Amino acid sequence: MRIGVLGAGQLGRMLALAGYPLAKNFVFYDMSGSPSAGLGEVIIDRDGRYLDDFLSRVDRVTYEFEHLPVEVAEKLAQQRPMHPSPRALQVCQNREAEKTLFGRLGIPTPQWRIADSAEALADVARELGCPVVAKSITEGYDGKGQAVLRTPEDAAEAWRVIGHPRVIVEQFVHFTREVSIIAVRAEDGDVAFYPMAENVHHEGILRYSIAPAPGLSPQVQQEAERYIRALLNDMDYVGVLTLELFETEHGLLANEMAPRVHNSGHWTLEGAMTSQFENHIRAISGHPLGNVDPRGLSCMINIIGEHGDTDRILALPYAHLHLYNKAERPGRKLGHVNILADSYEELVWRVRNCAQFLPGSPEFKSSLTARG
Amino acid sequence: MRIGVLGAGQLGRMLALAGYPLAKNFVFYDMSGSPSAGLGEVIIDRDGRYLDDFLSRVDRVTYEFEHLPVEVAEKLAQQRPMHPSPRALQVCQNREAEKTLFGRLGIPTPQWRIADSAEALADVARELGCPVVAKSITEGYDGKGQAVLRTPEDAAEAWRVIGHPRVIVEQFVHFTREVSIIAVRAEDGDVAFYPMAENVHHEGILRYSIAPAPGLSPQVQQEAERYIRALLNDMDYVGVLTLELFETEHGLLANEMAPRVHNSGHWTLEGAMTSQFENHIRAISGHPLGNVDPRGLSCMINIIGEHGDTDRILALPYAHLHLYNKAERPGRKLGHVNILADSYEELVWRVRNCAQFLPGSPEFKSSLTARG
Repeated sequence: MRIGVLGAGQLGRMLALAGYPLAKNFVFYDMSGSPSAGLGEVIIDRDGRYLDDFLSRVDRVTYEFEHLPVEVAEKLAQQRPMHPSPRALQVCQNREAEKTLFGRLGIPTPQWRIADSAEALADVARELGCPVVAKSITEGYDGKGQAVLRTPEDAAEAWRVIGHPRVIVEQFVHFTREVSIIAVRAEDGDVAFYPMAENVHHEGILRYSIAPAPGLSPQVQQEAERYIRALLNDMDYVGVLTLELFETEHGLLANEMAPRVHNSGHWTLEGAMTSQFENHIRAISGHPLGNVDPRGLSCMINIIGEHGDTDRILALPYAHLHLYNKAERPGRKLGHVNILADSYEELVWRVRNCAQFLPGSPEFKSSLTARG
Repeated sequence: MRIGVLGAGQLGRMLALAGYPLAKNFVFYDMSGSPSAGLGEVIIDRDGRYLDDFLSRVDRVTYEFEHLPVEVAEKLAQQRPMHPSPRALQVCQNREAEKTLFGRLGIPTPQWRIADSAEALADVARELGCPVVAKSITEGYDGKGQAVLRTPEDAAEAWRVIGHPRVIVEQFVHFTREVSIIAVRAEDGDVAFYPMAENVHHEGILRYSIAPAPGLSPQVQQEAERYIRALLNDMDYVGVLTLELFETEHGLLANEMAPRVHNSGHWTLEGAMTSQFENHIRAISGHPLGNVDPRGLSCMINIIGEHGDTDRILALPYAHLHLYNKAERPGRKLGHVNILADSYEELVWRVRNCAQFLPGSPEFKSSLTARG
């Protein structure tokens, strides 16, 4: 089976590495250069002229990024089985549609409102109580189009910075930690859930994911499973879906979802019986899902900006290095290291030991280190 | 780093899958078609005209099969770092050189003699005591050039069948089981040993490998490590080396070695902290070796001739499927399944359960099943 992947970044690369042992071949379609080159044919198409050529070479289509124009996705889906569906893409591209769906399915979120003018933004900020965060309802690659309002008087400036005719305004949440759940749904409707991960961000970039999340109660895991199952079934979704949540004293609040394999699931490469990448390939190919049980405890450390001392990392007996073959650049995800351990105490020690060889890594702070 | 691989079969394919996450790229050189295509550039060169072209595209050279002409290997090694060295290749290609080296290093083997005529073969068969097995001292791809002598009178016919001017004659061994040890040596001389595997052959083809070998005593493991360490150091070897042995009531006897990753080490993909493929790439690239500790108990089942019921295998929660993307053909290795378990009892049950979906698999017999 020939699988066409829209996008050719590290996610596509890891999908291919997981798919070759299942006798899949890969063709990548991208609008720019690519780190996946070498792992399959890559069609670089700046003008959208080679979509038909791409389609003629593949049996099924998937994507590794959610910013694909929905019209393009729909056109492709008419000609080849495409998973996840254009509808999933559409919902995930629009924060208003996403939050509306969460609400309809009874998935709690931080309070939110829509504003379509600077004046409306000021009113909404007043109603929700500052600080609030305002975001354009659609988002580009770069994560721009966001502003924090400390007071309602910030509205005019925020409106100008965002530069979008429709914004979503969200109340700040006092969360204990950020978590995510990754699930996969097969063509026949079978669903499997990975144990939730605890995610540590720094300067807006994911730095560490610990899985299973320390101190995770079965109730919280089940709550998250209920939410993501509702989403999967409602969208008749096939493939891997990621839901990012806040854990609060009053339960989970959904933040956003991604219709794809996710950075907070990279730990599954060695940390689970079947990786998120293999399970996505299984699902979109019509195969049964793989076992999602964890293998010990894992922490993923992102390699950001600089590669650090690769040979020191390779010499650690509990570390698994995954490089994306990209050039160094500040803020860029260059790879990740998966750390394995049998206890959280050991995990903390190992993560800190490894992080010293990664100059860009912030100090490791998590629910584990907060405990003392 | 660009790694050139001589040969483009499933071993090269799995080397590449392990090497991409270490930011290596691959160019394959083969004299026929290839199942690795898609994982890197493949140079098909029936006449040996493109070797320079191949070399110009790579930083280091390795090989995935040991039947490369030594002159070619030496020419390549003059121009690029090549691991394992042409010397290792030379020894492994010649059964007389191999057994002589075993003897010089104090590694016990079954008794053997050289014969250079039908008459000498008859004399040697008489001396060793029939049955004996006679083999041409050099071997081609196909494993031909062997004959069993039930009586010394079989010598003339055996000599004709083998059709080679120099044969090695080996005494039959009453072994308990066949085992192998896989070790890896780094550029700086560091050596790591995987736990030994028990190997089950059927009709001359490896069918099952169980690792760590059931009932393996630390003394036997250490004995095998001593032998393979002597070989690695004597050949100043860099990369993965495999030594196949017979376990007998009187200790281990070396059978033969292979200067490469080996079918009896495929269990390391999920069954060890670092796979044999990754460790070979680490070694030949000058990186530190990876941890060779096992992760639970493993059994590898080869998929021979027919693919069987792939979806039933994928549905097993303890099985990992690795396909080579090859067409079905009797006796051909099409892939393998790695089965994981926490006890040997569970492992036996799981292997039998999986094997029922592989029509070509012989009944699972091993030291585990022999016990009852």
